Amino acid sequence: MARKKSAPKAAPKTAPGRKKQGRILIEGITHGKQRVVIEGVQPEIDGGRYGIKRTVGDDVVVEADIFADGHDVVSAVLRYRQEAGQEWNEVPMEPLVNDRWRASFKVTEIGRYVYTVQAWVDHFKSWRRDLIKRTEAAQDVSVELLVGAKLAEDAARRASASDAKLFLDWAKALRTGGKETLHDRVERAVKEGFVSLMGRNPDRGAATTYAKELAVVVDPTRARFSAWYEFFPRSASPEPGRHGTFKDCEARLKYVADMGFDVLYFPPIHPIGREFRKGKNNSTTAGPNEPGSCWAIGADEGGHKSILPELGTLKDFRQLVLKARELGIDIALDIAFQCAPDHPYVKQHPEWFRARPDGTIQYAENPPKKYQDIYPFDFESEDWQELWLELKSVFTYWIEQGVRIFRVDNPHTKSFEFWEWVIPSVKKDHPEVLFLSEAFARPRVMYRLAKLGFSQSYTYFSWRNTKWELTQYMTDLANPEVREIFRPNFWPNTPDILPEYLQLGGRAAHATRLILAATLCANYGVYGPVYELGVNAPVARGKEEYLDSEKYEIKHWDLNRHDSLKPLIARVNNIRRRNLALQSDASLRFHPVDNEQIIAYSKSTGTPGHIDSFILTIVNLDPHHKQSGFVELPLEELDLDARHLYQMHDLLNDARYLWSGKRNFVELNPRQLNAHIFVLRRRLHTENDFDYFL
Amino acid sequence: MARKKSAPKAAPKTAPGRKKQGRILIEGITHGKQRVVIEGVQPEIDGGRYGIKRTVGDDVVVEADIFADGHDVVSAVLRYRQEAGQEWNEVPMEPLVNDRWRASFKVTEIGRYVYTVQAWVDHFKSWRRDLIKRTEAAQDVSVELLVGAKLAEDAARRASASDAKLFLDWAKALRTGGKETLHDRVERAVKEGFVSLMGRNPDRGAATTYAKELAVVVDPTRARFSAWYEFFPRSASPEPGRHGTFKDCEARLKYVADMGFDVLYFPPIHPIGREFRKGKNNSTTAGPNEPGSCWAIGADEGGHKSILPELGTLKDFRQLVLKARELGIDIALDIAFQCAPDHPYVKQHPEWFRARPDGTIQYAENPPKKYQDIYPFDFESEDWQELWLELKSVFTYWIEQGVRIFRVDNPHTKSFEFWEWVIPSVKKDHPEVLFLSEAFARPRVMYRLAKLGFSQSYTYFSWRNTKWELTQYMTDLANPEVREIFRPNFWPNTPDILPEYLQLGGRAAHATRLILAATLCANYGVYGPVYELGVNAPVARGKEEYLDSEKYEIKHWDLNRHDSLKPLIARVNNIRRRNLALQSDASLRFHPVDNEQIIAYSKSTGTPGHIDSFILTIVNLDPHHKQSGFVELPLEELDLDARHLYQMHDLLNDARYLWSGKRNFVELNPRQLNAHIFVLRRRLHTENDFDYFL
Repeated sequence: MARKKSAPKAAPKTAPGRKKQGRILIEGITHGKQRVVIEGVQPEIDGGRYGIKRTVGDDVVVEADIFADGHDVVSAVLRYRQEAGQEWNEVPMEPLVNDRWRASFKVTEIGRYVYTVQAWVDHFKSWRRDLIKRTEAAQDVSVELLVGAKLAEDAARRASASDAKLFLDWAKALRTGGKETLHDRVERAVKEGFVSLMGRNPDRGAATTYAKELAVVVDPTRARFSAWYEFFPRSASPEPGRHGTFKDCEARLKYVADMGFDVLYFPPIHPIGREFRKGKNNSTTAGPNEPGSCWAIGADEGGHKSILPELGTLKDFRQLVLKARELGIDIALDIAFQCAPDHPYVKQHPEWFRARPDGTIQYAENPPKKYQDIYPFDFESEDWQELWLELKSVFTYWIEQGVRIFRVDNPHTKSFEFWEWVIPSVKKDHPEVLFLSEAFARPRVMYRLAKLGFSQSYTYFSWRNTKWELTQYMTDLANPEVREIFRPNFWPNTPDILPEYLQLGGRAAHATRLILAATLCANYGVYGPVYELGVNAPVARGKEEYLDSEKYEIKHWDLNRHDSLKPLIARVNNIRRRNLALQSDASLRFHPVDNEQIIAYSKSTGTPGHIDSFILTIVNLDPHHKQSGFVELPLEELDLDARHLYQMHDLLNDARYLWSGKRNFVELNPRQLNAHIFVLRRRLHTENDFDYFL
Repeated sequence: MARKKSAPKAAPKTAPGRKKQGRILIEGITHGKQRVVIEGVQPEIDGGRYGIKRTVGDDVVVEADIFADGHDVVSAVLRYRQEAGQEWNEVPMEPLVNDRWRASFKVTEIGRYVYTVQAWVDHFKSWRRDLIKRTEAAQDVSVELLVGAKLAEDAARRASASDAKLFLDWAKALRTGGKETLHDRVERAVKEGFVSLMGRNPDRGAATTYAKELAVVVDPTRARFSAWYEFFPRSASPEPGRHGTFKDCEARLKYVADMGFDVLYFPPIHPIGREFRKGKNNSTTAGPNEPGSCWAIGADEGGHKSILPELGTLKDFRQLVLKARELGIDIALDIAFQCAPDHPYVKQHPEWFRARPDGTIQYAENPPKKYQDIYPFDFESEDWQELWLELKSVFTYWIEQGVRIFRVDNPHTKSFEFWEWVIPSVKKDHPEVLFLSEAFARPRVMYRLAKLGFSQSYTYFSWRNTKWELTQYMTDLANPEVREIFRPNFWPNTPDILPEYLQLGGRAAHATRLILAATLCANYGVYGPVYELGVNAPVARGKEEYLDSEKYEIKHWDLNRHDSLKPLIARVNNIRRRNLALQSDASLRFHPVDNEQIIAYSKSTGTPGHIDSFILTIVNLDPHHKQSGFVELPLEELDLDARHLYQMHDLLNDARYLWSGKRNFVELNPRQLNAHIFVLRRRLHTENDFDYFL
């Protein structure tokens, strides 16, 4: 119910005090006649400094406390527009309870919107309400009708020509009444038609407008719903021992698409430094044929805007991006703002690095650990402006090559001010671009990066295993202060993280964690092919690093192993695509189970009491033993009758179960399938459906 | 631990990028090198628009989320000053957990303070921390010592001459070492002395200062702790039938002081309108000798700055104020911004009122109810500036007569903008002045008025009777968003409110409600002498108005009635004065009782585990029947040993009880005294105290 408004015209002035109008007796207050208060506007992040996040087609529900002195009726509108300066759209706000008002609008375009609230004392509505009360009390209202006539005449001056005529006719009738009785004049005065006529032409001369315009960053749907797959291009060759190429990656796109992923993320693809190059298993020396870590970016061949020659050419890369897009897959690049000692920046811009008193450049450290193959940028450099501009140009360079998604390496070790500038700055010209923050940092740091503009973020999911941990963490993420700005992306593993649960739980653990990630969180990803192949040997007991990590060597994987989780992954991603409920995190809700090893939660569309689609995921967190228990559902909210059967249809294996009442038994076996992903099927047959019944 | 600081000097620049310094490549960002984030500062009301409230001597505890990118050490200070522009004082902030920092300062002067937070990456502390780690790992730190020398030399440029010398000596030692071994140089480098030396001279060249200066309104202690008594001066005559005078009020001051009240509040003392004057029991016509309602302000004799002649002269009033002050009593005036039809303003400033189309002035209404004896001001008047200035002058006029406390009648029917201007405007010249808001309005309205500047506020206490209601309401008021700005003042009755509980519960109910008000809330008041005399006949069953209300007639009261609650009130006020715990609401805490009719709560000084003084109030809410139950105390927080006895000393009647363990029995009888106000006496005698023991 949005409509355009014309700018409010000033109310005509007739008060006797007019003679002094314009004299300033009280400094600094221009709004002395504004009587409405607007406060407690939600959502509002950090006093309006940061925008909330939405994806195209989402609703933005806005609430505010709105009230005036005295007993007059208040009217309020939610105003919104795309940030780039068009006219405001307006939606009337509705009062809830306790002076709280609400309205909502839909964001339909990628980019930035702003919203604010305007409210005013509505003299027409107050007059009409009181006129009805007075008439009911049989009071003489003849003067009141003259007051109404005045309101109508004033409105005529604000209105369009056609509305003005209606107002003046009405005013005339109120004043003179013609042959009408007083009763008829009152009847006419309170007619609903005038409510909408005045609703179109309210007197907003003393309206209060909330002081802030609050922003909404609107991203493509993929920001809210995405399935990521990471692999190392250099390991993509079908021939063992040969360095993988972008052509090889192209050939592997179908494998990725068959599993149902829609973002394919590559570790850095740039030339790799030779100085202090790391060898196998992170050894400090590398043999002559060792490829080094791709995060040690830059060598004679170039830096962040160059491609490692072994992978192919820029043309190959561009073609790969296009081929992927044909399969509905976005290629995401890893942006790691750090340099190998032989990166061209180091010679060209020594001022971007920290110099040591002995003339060397400060390498990365976490004392006593040294990372001599990495030079961090110095964000306290006097030349921070040139540095920022250059780093921004890295993003725009790859955007020009067709990349729309970036995974940013360790953003929490670069200055927050930089991110606050660079992300909106890139999105200004390319609002469709997404940034995934790899900040496995403290909560405030993670959330701050999200506020500054990161579209998605890695999380602590990798270390949340028990029912208590998972429930607690999802509750933290659902806090409004977090939910409005922070989009989690759940990864069961990464090249840096092989959690103990995967090490000890084997294939069942991999299946379990994948299902958890994919159903708890609308955005999730895995690092493969190690994941689907269940590779889980740590470099040492008690460490979470992969043994013989792909970070330091070229690997060859047998993708066709019979025990690969590929079919399960494909099934899960297919379920996600077909069920809208799994494509957002807003409706997540946990349900009690009387077994600490079994977790049950649902996502749904619709609203409580009017649930359209209900997806219930039940997972056995024990990768070793069969577990069983009773799951409890809120039948009333699901509009289910406790006396009749309902059907739970497991989308993972197409099994169907008849349930009844609020408590139902489940049993899950890690040797088979350790989870259910149920969809609730309400309609069950009764005798009415039987041919002979009627 | 506050100290003054000199303004931070810019850090010396030596980076190679210097050549380009000063060129602007990135518009709108001057702080690109600032790496510290400050957010989530608390307390902060409505994004900093309103100040928090304190009284002289209170602490202001400030917390903030403070962090930087990367792993460097951060230092932070809380900065505060009196608003009127002196230099900042600074207190180092201490990290708590999860990037939360805290510090506090004491407000020692009435008026306004401001505070903010500053934080910076502390290169010295980072360097020192890492040097220790490197040394422990037996790494070569010779270059690190040179880095330290550079830090010291840079600091010398910021430091006083004497500190500079210390820095330079230190730098020299770090560089050359003299005859020292590397080990000795490291020992010297990390000496604690340099920590405090550098602490005095930090490099704040790239410090982040929180963008807002947040205000504290510091009031006299009476804003936090006050006992109000209201009576009608015109009923103060000792002779029945004679109109009371200020002289009579003077004679009654001792009665008020004996009961222990420290604020004496008078309904309006101005000339009373004759047009549409109200008679006995609010009848619409008044006989020739009826005095009218004192809230119908203004007549030929004058308006808001005049005194009803029958009460006496301005001189009498001023003398009354002085005499009261000698007894420790402030006279509070009622400011009701509304006019009788014959108020001089009506003729002099018709533009301040709303004109009706028939040429009359709009009287007050709540349709269909009409209040023809009252003209409200029109806050939408074109002449709002003159109106505001005149209303402000009413406050300043009475301040000049010695008044320091105002009770403001129905502030929620005057514009919020007006209050937001007038209260700070009055307090700017008279920061000691207090305003009590009589807004029995919706919660948002009440809280908004508090934010705008009202020092205290009437509450819903009058209608909160059951244990659940009282507990719930006190919990609402303890919410930080409320507590920081809203000081409740609990009134069991007012001339407008005779609650049903008092009507039906008689004397026991009056005693109970007085004790509840006085112990739940550090600010409370009663309207007497009806209260202590237990007058409780309503104008009609189901109404909360007093029968034959003093609002419309002159009354005569027998203050010496044997059943007066005067001795109880005196006792309660005496307990409040002697026990600091009852002089603030911050420590209020409820304790379980297994009887819904018995409520138990405590106030204390000290902190949990280190409670100094513990006042436990237990009230039987049933005014009809004896009730008993078990009260449960948190022994651990009270540092009480469950195995031994402790003593509860009832300050109301000097009875002493021996208690043990966490659950103890109480029994209260409305025919006797329906409450305990216990102080915990910890020390009990043991054999050690017995003469023969040693």
